[in-house]
Amino acid sequence: MNPKIAFVGVGRMGANMARCLKDRGYPVAAVFDRDAPTAQTIAGELGAVACRSLSSVTAAADVIFTVVTDDNAQRAVFAASGDSLLIGAAGKTFVNCATISPAVHVEIEAAAERAGASSLEACMASSIPQARNGTLYLMCSGRKPVFDGLKPILSELSDHGRLLRYLGPAGTAAQVKALVNMVMNINTAALAEGLGLGAALGLDLHALIEVFSQTGAASRIVTTDGEDMVNRDHACFFSAAHAAKDSGIALALAEGAGLNLPLAAATKAQYDRLVALGLGNIDKSGIAELTFPGRTATPRRTGDPA
Amino acid sequence: MNPKIAFVGVGRMGANMARCLKDRGYPVAAVFDRDAPTAQTIAGELGAVACRSLSSVTAAADVIFTVVTDDNAQRAVFAASGDSLLIGAAGKTFVNCATISPAVHVEIEAAAERAGASSLEACMASSIPQARNGTLYLMCSGRKPVFDGLKPILSELSDHGRLLRYLGPAGTAAQVKALVNMVMNINTAALAEGLGLGAALGLDLHALIEVFSQTGAASRIVTTDGEDMVNRDHACFFSAAHAAKDSGIALALAEGAGLNLPLAAATKAQYDRLVALGLGNIDKSGIAELTFPGRTATPRRTGDPA
Repeated sequence: MNPKIAFVGVGRMGANMARCLKDRGYPVAAVFDRDAPTAQTIAGELGAVACRSLSSVTAAADVIFTVVTDDNAQRAVFAASGDSLLIGAAGKTFVNCATISPAVHVEIEAAAERAGASSLEACMASSIPQARNGTLYLMCSGRKPVFDGLKPILSELSDHGRLLRYLGPAGTAAQVKALVNMVMNINTAALAEGLGLGAALGLDLHALIEVFSQTGAASRIVTTDGEDMVNRDHACFFSAAHAAKDSGIALALAEGAGLNLPLAAATKAQYDRLVALGLGNIDKSGIAELTFPGRTATPRRTGDPA
Repeated sequence: MNPKIAFVGVGRMGANMARCLKDRGYPVAAVFDRDAPTAQTIAGELGAVACRSLSSVTAAADVIFTVVTDDNAQRAVFAASGDSLLIGAAGKTFVNCATISPAVHVEIEAAAERAGASSLEACMASSIPQARNGTLYLMCSGRKPVFDGLKPILSELSDHGRLLRYLGPAGTAAQVKALVNMVMNINTAALAEGLGLGAALGLDLHALIEVFSQTGAASRIVTTDGEDMVNRDHACFFSAAHAAKDSGIALALAEGAGLNLPLAAATKAQYDRLVALGLGNIDKSGIAELTFPGRTATPRRTGDPA
């Protein structure tokens, strides 16, 4: 019999992971979101209870996924006092999917273990469609036996385990995820500069994207974001604000290590500019709004005619 | 009957293109290099004449490839006075393969046409092994009929034409090439930062390269340069000095267009640092010497024990 599941944080990622697991035969017993109407809607859809307290989430399920926004949100749901997932947590297993600081994963693992529970970090290097259809690239770290015990359920989310990786002790996956996103964000900024300059030179940008994809400029970002940058289609899969946050996590790690990473810093500055322009909620491809001639600070809204 | 070929500039790229064309049945009649012993060696190998003047190269061949280092070298071989490829050039065809400024390609085309000759730019987005085995990615621009006339010979160099592209009037290919290399150099700098920070965190760098290659951080550079960065194997395919030069060409184009490209600027600054450290002749992967902990300014030489 499959364990009962709960989700804390049912935004786009969490809700789609919950939908996927329900499809695969896992009972989704409870959901929680700090936005109560969102929790109600998803609970109704999945036949789950929309919990009004974190402790009732823990009570309702065996395996609790947390898909929250940042370090503070992650710490808040595992608070040492007041309402918390840690209340009555003995024997429960937490799977923490947020992109947060590595040190916070280490903290949460220790707190969970003090409460008699287990904790695993499962960082996702994919986006919403992959959450929905169970093809997330999942980078896990924590205690190996905890990972082994969760393999069946995590495999359902990661293309039958083909995209499931165990990377080491708590914090490792978050470090790797921070590095993945740091490099991805730089590659994104690079593409925005290449296409922006191509536009300024009057080149055929579709031909340019094809050439990029077939040469040393090739990257996954060319495929996923190239046409969106040209077409100004910045419907959000991974927001500019998240990009700024994740590059910031990597830069903080670099600072701690005494490393100078000028590209990561320049990329964070670009995403910070987007946020300052009030564009933090558009997709990371929106960085092209800063590099194409005539676009700066006067972007059309998504959906406006091109 | 195949046209007689000549090569001006028989460094690693030019010499291997000449070897390839000779293998495919094109008579290599003449070679020229400003380093006379290099020209002698290659001429001996290919059964060609090592010309002592540019005008004798033009006299000896129907199609003359130029594979020189930079704008000044390109202008010098097409000089308006003194020894020049333009002397007696009526009816000859020049194929200019150097990575140079777009405006210089436009100049050279005009000068060639005044001399009754034809000119095509054929920018290469590949490296030495591809030159040798005829699988160069060739981006061409100039007069379309000139391109059409050269298709048979250019196809021999570009995987039977599968990697041959016609992009537009003179200068276009050089613009696209500058953009390709600008983006490639940024992606290279990005990878060096990601792996350098991974090293500082004590991560398994081979696992990290695998994760990068399977996620949003994926780029061709991860495949071609990742292990080299970890292993400090900077044997030169594309030098740091060339990377600095090419990013500089793109930045000059951006400046002309009034665009601010902070990532390209940060990347050029890194490659300029390598050059200033006396490391301009190592491969572009050597940028990792600036980002890995403990490596800065104290790199081992290529070939030293790891």
